[in-house]
Amino acid sequence: MKAVVCSQGKLEVADIASPRPGPGQVLVRVLRCGICGSDLHARLHCDELAALAAATGYDHFMRSDQRVVLGHEFCGEVVEYGPGCRKRWRAGTRVVALPILRNGRQPHLTGLSAAAPGGYAELVVVQESMTFPVPNGLSADHAALTEPMAVAWHAVRRGRVGKGQTAFVVGCGPIGLAVICMLKASGVRTVVASDFSPRRRELAARCGADVVVDPAAESPWEAAPKGRITGANDVLNLGFDTMQRLRRIPKLPWWHLFRLLHTLDAAPTGPVIFECVGVPGIIDGILTAAPPRSRVVVVGVCMQADTVHPAMAINKELELRFVLGYDPGEFRDTLHMIAAGKVDPTPLVTATVGLDGVDNAFAALGNPERHAKILIDPASTTIVP
Amino acid sequence: MKAVVCSQGKLEVADIASPRPGPGQVLVRVLRCGICGSDLHARLHCDELAALAAATGYDHFMRSDQRVVLGHEFCGEVVEYGPGCRKRWRAGTRVVALPILRNGRQPHLTGLSAAAPGGYAELVVVQESMTFPVPNGLSADHAALTEPMAVAWHAVRRGRVGKGQTAFVVGCGPIGLAVICMLKASGVRTVVASDFSPRRRELAARCGADVVVDPAAESPWEAAPKGRITGANDVLNLGFDTMQRLRRIPKLPWWHLFRLLHTLDAAPTGPVIFECVGVPGIIDGILTAAPPRSRVVVVGVCMQADTVHPAMAINKELELRFVLGYDPGEFRDTLHMIAAGKVDPTPLVTATVGLDGVDNAFAALGNPERHAKILIDPASTTIVP
Repeated sequence: MKAVVCSQGKLEVADIASPRPGPGQVLVRVLRCGICGSDLHARLHCDELAALAAATGYDHFMRSDQRVVLGHEFCGEVVEYGPGCRKRWRAGTRVVALPILRNGRQPHLTGLSAAAPGGYAELVVVQESMTFPVPNGLSADHAALTEPMAVAWHAVRRGRVGKGQTAFVVGCGPIGLAVICMLKASGVRTVVASDFSPRRRELAARCGADVVVDPAAESPWEAAPKGRITGANDVLNLGFDTMQRLRRIPKLPWWHLFRLLHTLDAAPTGPVIFECVGVPGIIDGILTAAPPRSRVVVVGVCMQADTVHPAMAINKELELRFVLGYDPGEFRDTLHMIAAGKVDPTPLVTATVGLDGVDNAFAALGNPERHAKILIDPASTTIVP
Repeated sequence: MKAVVCSQGKLEVADIASPRPGPGQVLVRVLRCGICGSDLHARLHCDELAALAAATGYDHFMRSDQRVVLGHEFCGEVVEYGPGCRKRWRAGTRVVALPILRNGRQPHLTGLSAAAPGGYAELVVVQESMTFPVPNGLSADHAALTEPMAVAWHAVRRGRVGKGQTAFVVGCGPIGLAVICMLKASGVRTVVASDFSPRRRELAARCGADVVVDPAAESPWEAAPKGRITGANDVLNLGFDTMQRLRRIPKLPWWHLFRLLHTLDAAPTGPVIFECVGVPGIIDGILTAAPPRSRVVVVGVCMQADTVHPAMAINKELELRFVLGYDPGEFRDTLHMIAAGKVDPTPLVTATVGLDGVDNAFAALGNPERHAKILIDPASTTIVP
């Protein structure tokens, strides 16, 4: 089959052996596969990523001297089943799948491991237990966005944003845009997005951001409606006011109210901030600027060492939640949210290319003014995104 | 009255004017006042702390050129009330209070602001709404520990440790020891404590730590019973195993189970780690060594810039909760837990001195082999702790 092979930092279209589905696995014909920021990074820095993955206990991340088929955001059609499958879907059924495979007890990351070739190809192998039929005749374009939208859905859920809380999205690349879509889909009233790129800001507005800010011209924190807690005095006064009010009522067991707030984990009363940039300095900038009791969800992947000032985070009782991926329930829910029209990922996609266009697409994605998400259609011959 | 005055980094016993209670405030005769690590730090570095506090919106933190009475962990007896008080307790009633005062709408930190002299003195002013009578004839020694124990109680509650989860306490200074006490009081079965000091490890064991480790000789992470999730493979296999099991059941809406887990915020399945050291490098050390999905509660105050590797935290989906202080409900609950014997803070206190002994006590606290918590008894003449 035809596939894009990554080796020594280069991408080339090659004819390679078609993959065979193992036990519990399904062979799928790729209809669309998205190009992810992780793919751009893995192409050039996979040895660093492999060292990091090994440090956390995963020894099979791709290395630069291997020949690897990238691609972990795909939609395809069922071709055939490996042994031991339940064969729930007829051949030709349109499916999406979590990009993970298992050989015995060893899991592999599809499209980021030599042991599990990805979706930059005509065919890809998926795990049957992690595969879902595409409902409602949803287009392959939109179905292929399930994976990045599920990353955003997981981040939004881990952020536990109340509908009345303000959400800030710092950085409007594909994941930042997907986070905006998912925040609005979950009913959050005020979403403030910031990005230095005019094109990205335009896409953020199309994704539903209520306030869109150029951080070079204006502070996102100033652009947002002011919350109740803007500084240390507010935190302390809130305590005084609450106690003065409660203690006016004789024999009230007021401490139960505080216990209830804790049980509900309702302590953070500041905004929720989604860090979707992933460069050194951005986390510390957020810790410095964030109102007290903010929750910061770190979605952007900063590979370098980074400097932070813990005392600032302590003085404001900030919370940092680092997020990665999603679980199968979130992946399935994302697919169904897209299919039901609850979330519209249309603004994310800025071009579609064939396998021969992947190298060009990688170059084009370096410029935020041009593209957000580029899809690969293995049946297409488009080269210039 | 006699008080210990801090100015230009020096402590001296002086005769100063007695404070007067303002509206809603109570004058209290100090029976005991604890010396806190923050006091040691504020004595020498209060200008840095003031700059940090100002950056978060509190402009009245003490400065080195002011004359300030330290002390925010105190127990005393009611002497007289200011105007507008409800006068709930008779003179002589033993009370503790949150160390915050309010003049109009401006809050002040008692014992850390020139505007609110603290408990290193014969008399101190407290806010009536933030004051609690000491129940059960609890000794002044133990009642004075309400404040540091409340810091620990807040940290433990923010950590949301399940009884079956392993809790790690990194650093066994007074706050680390108090965290150990509170973890055991809340029923956590396995508490692993680590400290380089033999004396502190001995105190940790007395506070109830189940496993006590010298990190120079042994890794705390290896000393603990292994959890279900020790690396990336375990996280991925957990997903596979769950899905394989769930999908065997026809027509099961399995995705609701995943939603439920999220609603319960049950995603982190690693241990909860309490960072009670507060020096550069300790957070990154924990991020590197912690199992996936750990929650790190940062209690130690690192004032310097610190280096972290965000990608490591992302790959393991770690969570960092920076904590500060407590709310009035936690303060009240801590007092009652001590009074009811649910938590015994006895191991924390290693000496009691008079006001003339405070300067010596500050010096002695520099050596972890000698002391943990030193109390001040203004009626005592003990000089050497």
